[in-house]
Amino acid sequence: MQAATNIQNQTLTHAFHALKCKECGAEYELEAKNVCELCFGPLEVKYDYSNLRKTITRKTIEAGPNSIWRYQKFLPVTSENPIDVGTGMTPLVRSHRLARRLGLKKLYIKNDAVNMPTLSFKDRVVSVALTRAKELGFTTVSCASTGNLANSTAAIAAHAGLDCCVFIPADLEAGKILGSLIYSPTLMAVKGNYDQVNRLCSEVANTHGWGFVNINLRPYYSEGSKTLGFEVAEQLGWELPDHIVAPLASGSLFSKIYKGFNEFVEVGLVEAKNVRFSGAQAEGCSPIAKAFKEGRDFIQPEKPNTIAKSIAIGNPADGIYAVEIANKTNGNIESVTDAEIIEGMKLLAETEGIFTETAGGTTIAVLKKLVEAGKIDPEETTVAYITGNGLKTQEAIQAYVGEPLTIDAKLDSFESALERSRTLERLEWQQVLV
Amino acid sequence: MQAATNIQNQTLTHAFHALKCKECGAEYELEAKNVCELCFGPLEVKYDYSNLRKTITRKTIEAGPNSIWRYQKFLPVTSENPIDVGTGMTPLVRSHRLARRLGLKKLYIKNDAVNMPTLSFKDRVVSVALTRAKELGFTTVSCASTGNLANSTAAIAAHAGLDCCVFIPADLEAGKILGSLIYSPTLMAVKGNYDQVNRLCSEVANTHGWGFVNINLRPYYSEGSKTLGFEVAEQLGWELPDHIVAPLASGSLFSKIYKGFNEFVEVGLVEAKNVRFSGAQAEGCSPIAKAFKEGRDFIQPEKPNTIAKSIAIGNPADGIYAVEIANKTNGNIESVTDAEIIEGMKLLAETEGIFTETAGGTTIAVLKKLVEAGKIDPEETTVAYITGNGLKTQEAIQAYVGEPLTIDAKLDSFESALERSRTLERLEWQQVLV
Repeated sequence: MQAATNIQNQTLTHAFHALKCKECGAEYELEAKNVCELCFGPLEVKYDYSNLRKTITRKTIEAGPNSIWRYQKFLPVTSENPIDVGTGMTPLVRSHRLARRLGLKKLYIKNDAVNMPTLSFKDRVVSVALTRAKELGFTTVSCASTGNLANSTAAIAAHAGLDCCVFIPADLEAGKILGSLIYSPTLMAVKGNYDQVNRLCSEVANTHGWGFVNINLRPYYSEGSKTLGFEVAEQLGWELPDHIVAPLASGSLFSKIYKGFNEFVEVGLVEAKNVRFSGAQAEGCSPIAKAFKEGRDFIQPEKPNTIAKSIAIGNPADGIYAVEIANKTNGNIESVTDAEIIEGMKLLAETEGIFTETAGGTTIAVLKKLVEAGKIDPEETTVAYITGNGLKTQEAIQAYVGEPLTIDAKLDSFESALERSRTLERLEWQQVLV
Repeated sequence: MQAATNIQNQTLTHAFHALKCKECGAEYELEAKNVCELCFGPLEVKYDYSNLRKTITRKTIEAGPNSIWRYQKFLPVTSENPIDVGTGMTPLVRSHRLARRLGLKKLYIKNDAVNMPTLSFKDRVVSVALTRAKELGFTTVSCASTGNLANSTAAIAAHAGLDCCVFIPADLEAGKILGSLIYSPTLMAVKGNYDQVNRLCSEVANTHGWGFVNINLRPYYSEGSKTLGFEVAEQLGWELPDHIVAPLASGSLFSKIYKGFNEFVEVGLVEAKNVRFSGAQAEGCSPIAKAFKEGRDFIQPEKPNTIAKSIAIGNPADGIYAVEIANKTNGNIESVTDAEIIEGMKLLAETEGIFTETAGGTTIAVLKKLVEAGKIDPEETTVAYITGNGLKTQEAIQAYVGEPLTIDAKLDSFESALERSRTLERLEWQQVLV
C-alpha cells in the first residue's frame, strides 16, 4: 500500500488532507478506510477550502476538460492524469413539455441516463474511486452493486487495466448482468438482496486486500457525486436551483449533491441560497421515506420488494443524513408505487424523449406527486436528477408500452393499419373526455 | 409549406443556399426534396464557403454550445434555437490498451455509443432533420429505419412536440423496438428487410406530406453526420487524423465525414491532409465491400443476412460514393463474419470498457483485419468510429459472454467460486501457451 508515503505530498499540493469521522470528528490518514475506529461512524474526505478560494474561479473551471475532471480540485485524487473516459457534463435539459404537463414554470432534467461510459451516475463515483485506487496501489477493484455500479466498475476497470471482481444480487435485470459480463470481470451473483451482498463484501474486503469502491474506498468514491451538484450550478449559469428532486438508495448521492452546492458557496463560486432537497423512493423499499414521515432520527431496515432494483437498499448507510438534509432545507421525502414508477418512465419519455430506468421513473413520479400536493411551488426553478438508462431495465416496462403495428410491405397494408391506430386513438380520447 | 417564403432570408444570412444534384449539378430551392428531377441523382446542400471563411474561427466554435450546434454555420438550418438535447461532442478516447493489442501506436475511438439522447450517431442527423422539418412547416415526422434511426426520431420528436410515425423491419432486436415504443410514436413493423421498408416509405412520403428524415429531408438530415468529422478534427487539437475506419450501411455517414474534413480545410480551420478512409461491412450484407474489391463502379444489391442489422442495407443509396472515397484516399473496404463481429464487440469492451452494438463490433473487427493485413500503418493516427450502443443488441452477444458465478451470501461459498474461476483461468492460459 502506497498511502503512507504519498500523504505528505498531498498535503502540500492538494486541498484534501484527511479523512474525518462524520459523527465524532476523529481524523485519519488518507488510506483505504471507511469506518471510524472510535465510534464506527462513516469517514468523509476533509478539504482546506481557504486554499481553494484563492485559486479557483469560474474561468479556471470553464477552461478545464469537458468532464467531471474540470472539478478535480474538489475531488480526492492526486493524479495528474486521472481516469477520464468522458464521464460527466451530461445535459441539463430545460423541460418545457414535462413542465407544462405538471404545471411547473421552470423545470430541468439533469440527464445522467446518458452519462459516459455506462449510462448512469455511477460512472462519476467510479472514475474517482478507481483513480484513487490506483494511487493507493490497488491492482484489483471490486464493489457490491445493484447493477449500475457493477457495470461502471467493470467498464472503467477494463479501460484502466485493473483486475475486477464485482458482486450483485442474483435476481437483477438481464441488461445489468450482460452490461457487466461484456467487460469480462469476475462476476459474483449472490443469492440474496443487496444488503446481504453488501455484508458479504465487507467480509471479503477485510480478507482479500481489494479496493472495494463503495466499502473501503467509499470516502473517495462518494465524493464523485458532488459533481452532480457542481454541474447543475455551472449549467444554470453559476446559480443554484430552488429545489431538487433526486432518488434515494443509500442516501449518499443526495448528501453529496448537498455537499457540492455548499462547497461552491464556500469558495465563492455561487451565491448562497436555501436549495430545497426532496428525495424519491419506491414504496417497496422506502426506509428513508418512512423515517422522514414518522419524524424518526433512525432508519428501520426493511426487505426490498420493488421493480426499482437499482435503488432497493433496505438498510441505507447514509439514510439518516438524507432525512436531516430534507428537514433542514424544508424539502420532502416521498415514495411511489411500482405502477406510478412505470407511469413516471412513460411520462418522461413521451414528453422529453428521455428513456430512464426504474429509478428515474421513481424520481419523476415523486416529482409529480409533490407538485400535486403543493409541495413544489410552480415558480421554483426545479431540477430532477435522472440517474440511469431505461435500456438496462427493459423487463420492467416491456408489458406497458404496447406493440408495433405489424404490416406487409405494401401501401394498402400501411394505410389500413394507420386508420386502425387513429380510430383507436380517437376512442381513447373519447374515453378521456367522458 | 413555409419553404418558399423562407428562402430569401436564408440566402442573406446563412451559408447554405441551394440543393444541388451530386450527378448533374442542377440546383433546386431549399425544399423537402431529395431526388433530381432531371437525372434522378441525389441532392446535396450547397454552401457559400467564402462567407464562412471570413466569419468562423476556432475560437468562435470553441465558444459555442457543447453539442453539434457549435458547428451550426456548417449545418442547413436557420433557427436561432435549433433542437438541442445535448447531441454530439461525444468522447474521442485515446485507446492505449486496444492499440497495444492490435499493434498500433496512436488509436482513438470516437464513441457515439454514448451519444445523446438515444445512444447512436443517428441523434446527430435527426437533430438537424427535425429542426429543418419544423422550419419547413412539417408537423408529422417519419423515417425508414434499421432501429437506431427510429429510436432517435421518436425520442427527439417527443421532445420537440412533433407527431411521429416510424417504420422498421419486423425482425429487429427487442431493445430497438422497445427503444422506440417508449416514446409513444406510431410504430410500423414491416414484414420485410430494410430495403423493402425504404421503398414503402418512399411511397408514403409521396402521399402523406410527412417529413421523412431520410427520404424527402435526406439532404438536410445527412449533413448532420459531418459533425462526426468536425468533432474529431477539433478533439485532435484542430488536426486531421491519418486514417479513419467507419461502418458502411447506406454509405452516407462515410461520405459526410469526408465532406466535414474537407469543409474544415476549405475554410482554413485545419491543414489539408490525405486522410485515408476505410469502411467496414458485415459479410452477410457487403454490397459496397464487394464493389470495392471487384473494382466496380456500380453496386449489386443483395439480400441481407447478418447479426449486424443496423448496417444491413442491401441496396445502399450512397454506396458508390463510399467506394469512390476509399479509392481516392488510398483506403480500403473490408467485410467480416458474424463470429468476427462478436469478437470485435468483446475485444472493445475488454480493452476499453466500451460496450458497442453489432455495427461497432464490425468496425473493430475490420480495424483488426486491416492492421493484420498491413493496410493500416502502426504509425498512422487512426480513428475508429463507434456508432451505437450494445444494450440495444443484447441478443446478438448474450450467448458469448459467459454466465455469472452464482454463490450463497457466505464467505466460503465466495472463496470456492473464486478458486474455481482462477483454476479455469489458469487452464485457459495453459491452453493459450500450448
